[in-house]
Amino acid sequence: MKNVVILGSGFAGVNAAKALCRDKNLQIAIIDERNYHLFQPLLYQVAIGALSGSDIAVPIRTIFSKFPNVRVVKERAKSVDLKKKKVVTDIQELSYDYLIMSCGAKHSYFGHYEWEEFAPGLKTLEQALEIRNRILEAFEEAERQCDNKCINQLLTFAIVGGGPTGVELAGAIAEMGQLILKGDFRNIDPKKVCVVLIEAGPRLLTGFCEKMSIRAKKDLEGMGVEVKLNAQVTNIDKNGVTIGKERIEAATVLWAAGVDAAAINKTLELELDRSGRVTVGPDLSIKNYPEVFVIGDQANCPGKNGKSLPGVATVALQQGTLAGKNILRDIKGLPRKNFKFFDKGSAATIGRSKAIVEVGPFKFGGLLAWIIWLFIHLWFLTGFENRVVVLFRWAWVYLRHRHGARIIMSRQWRFYG
Amino acid sequence: MKNVVILGSGFAGVNAAKALCRDKNLQIAIIDERNYHLFQPLLYQVAIGALSGSDIAVPIRTIFSKFPNVRVVKERAKSVDLKKKKVVTDIQELSYDYLIMSCGAKHSYFGHYEWEEFAPGLKTLEQALEIRNRILEAFEEAERQCDNKCINQLLTFAIVGGGPTGVELAGAIAEMGQLILKGDFRNIDPKKVCVVLIEAGPRLLTGFCEKMSIRAKKDLEGMGVEVKLNAQVTNIDKNGVTIGKERIEAATVLWAAGVDAAAINKTLELELDRSGRVTVGPDLSIKNYPEVFVIGDQANCPGKNGKSLPGVATVALQQGTLAGKNILRDIKGLPRKNFKFFDKGSAATIGRSKAIVEVGPFKFGGLLAWIIWLFIHLWFLTGFENRVVVLFRWAWVYLRHRHGARIIMSRQWRFYG
Repeated sequence: MKNVVILGSGFAGVNAAKALCRDKNLQIAIIDERNYHLFQPLLYQVAIGALSGSDIAVPIRTIFSKFPNVRVVKERAKSVDLKKKKVVTDIQELSYDYLIMSCGAKHSYFGHYEWEEFAPGLKTLEQALEIRNRILEAFEEAERQCDNKCINQLLTFAIVGGGPTGVELAGAIAEMGQLILKGDFRNIDPKKVCVVLIEAGPRLLTGFCEKMSIRAKKDLEGMGVEVKLNAQVTNIDKNGVTIGKERIEAATVLWAAGVDAAAINKTLELELDRSGRVTVGPDLSIKNYPEVFVIGDQANCPGKNGKSLPGVATVALQQGTLAGKNILRDIKGLPRKNFKFFDKGSAATIGRSKAIVEVGPFKFGGLLAWIIWLFIHLWFLTGFENRVVVLFRWAWVYLRHRHGARIIMSRQWRFYG
Repeated sequence: MKNVVILGSGFAGVNAAKALCRDKNLQIAIIDERNYHLFQPLLYQVAIGALSGSDIAVPIRTIFSKFPNVRVVKERAKSVDLKKKKVVTDIQELSYDYLIMSCGAKHSYFGHYEWEEFAPGLKTLEQALEIRNRILEAFEEAERQCDNKCINQLLTFAIVGGGPTGVELAGAIAEMGQLILKGDFRNIDPKKVCVVLIEAGPRLLTGFCEKMSIRAKKDLEGMGVEVKLNAQVTNIDKNGVTIGKERIEAATVLWAAGVDAAAINKTLELELDRSGRVTVGPDLSIKNYPEVFVIGDQANCPGKNGKSLPGVATVALQQGTLAGKNILRDIKGLPRKNFKFFDKGSAATIGRSKAIVEVGPFKFGGLLAWIIWLFIHLWFLTGFENRVVVLFRWAWVYLRHRHGARIIMSRQWRFYG
């Protein structure tokens, strides 16, 4: 009977557990401080109020309820003692024979942690709801104001970071103004919304080829988004963003720029790369500790060209499966397999009927790309119930131009005291 | 051009606005601190994780987006100056020619406000999510514990108040243990859940006839709920409830007992009844101020037998419509109509395939009552999108015994600082 401990229930952790759970000789513990697996690629849709949080979240216990050998431990993993083979949580210590670390990443501010207050990142459901509140409150506050300068600042949304999340948020907020909020206000015209997408590098969506980057920029500009390339943010405060000498007055600033690997990596006493990631060997385990696998956004795993693989769902999913299989091979006395990333392609959505897709030599945008994007995301969304609800909500948004989750929630639940 | 100000967007306020919005000579302002209309009868389903918040909430702006003469003011109404015909919000003052007060009620603790911390009420979405977190966390914490006494306390849920909300919560939590959480835990058996429903009066569901009360009690007991009648709560703390000399050790206590009318009534400088309600005349306006209507849970409106009408959705809906119509009649120079409550009947659900229904002389329980309950609630739920999503989620729960929104959300969104 071997003990396998899995830290984190993102794409990597859940897939690793799925690869392992059918072996009844394994005791598997999944440790996560949250009780649900989150489908992060659609998190931006929660942030803009198109989906509700539970549409893209599935309880981890539900996923593994049929496997008595899988135990879900809702605790926060704080540190790992590689030598003693122990994980320390906020509540207890767990010993392991095998450890799979898949805690993912959080957004990073390149040292400027004080920016978080003014520019939330989008990695958790809580952040998605914070962003939703900020976007909707900005429109509400603009409706209340009379001063034009003030209204313009409230209707300006600055998004830092031109990766998929930044592009998706920019497109979606522009669409909210143009389409979704039509008729909702009396003093302001939501069409006057001004969305600025700020990217430090020379092009958007660096995971795609240059032609697709240009296409995405053109599509966004067609929707009224102002795209600023080679623009390094030097300051963020509650009134807006500073880019060198340029100032953008924006009541809402959203952060979609850098990510850092989960902080638990620092407790390993290993050398980490610039993003705080652990470099793993070809079998996804770490040097000198073959019983420890690090996968997903937490790992620095070199790809075919020697460059580190990107922090995307497909990499995490495939790494999860291989880490699980390598443990099974160990137990059977078979040699481990090396990780080979099978690139199924990439897709990013920009707006209604607009997306870009790259599959091998095929690179295209437009309506077909958008439909492909929709079906990929529905297909990978966990839980049949979620798929049906999301499909229906999307059809509704498409046909009726209405978002189903445009509600502002307070964090306060008490009336008294 | 007359100014109509409506306070609150519950059933009463929204129906009043619907009655008025087609008259283009009226300027209507709906003031609410929330941006959505909430379908309160299904709030307990959000609390148990069967539905998500946005399934039962519709943005007020969406409901009235086609009526340019309806303005939504997302502010908190603080007081009303009847003599100066002004409403004061946290931001501005609004003058009115006609005022409709429909702010509803909040839960009351009969003076024991310190109980709120230990026993949240169920009137808002925020409270529903707080309750959901508490219920799910209790199971999680029980799973972590070894001590049997401690586990029993964590799996004991005490609900104070035997009205529809208390009955629905009790039945739903019992069902979670028996059915919904099956297979989810490894150390505890969720079937050992112990639900105690505490009612100060001699019977449950006093809005129904005695026979139906007895039936509801029997149904609940069949589901494993312990029903305590004539039981007056004397104390609530973080470990449980005290009823005179009896003590119930319960980690989760929920409050479904008394309600008080919205506090804004106190600013009117009028005599209020014991529940803080304003007594209204037969046309729903208040004495000496014919331009001010008070409706819904905020009003004390005598019914046919002289007894005050209950604080239920059907009364609020019909009062909303009549208040609106009486304003229209005023403007046309017609005499006002008196409010006559048309009792369409009552329905309360107890659990899977169990409910009670009273329509005129027909009083029955069981599967048929339950189906009627389902359809009434779907029918009145605002927004076609919500209806479809809720119908689908219900079918899913019924067939698969799984709740779609069983996720625990933190109030904290920041990583840093």
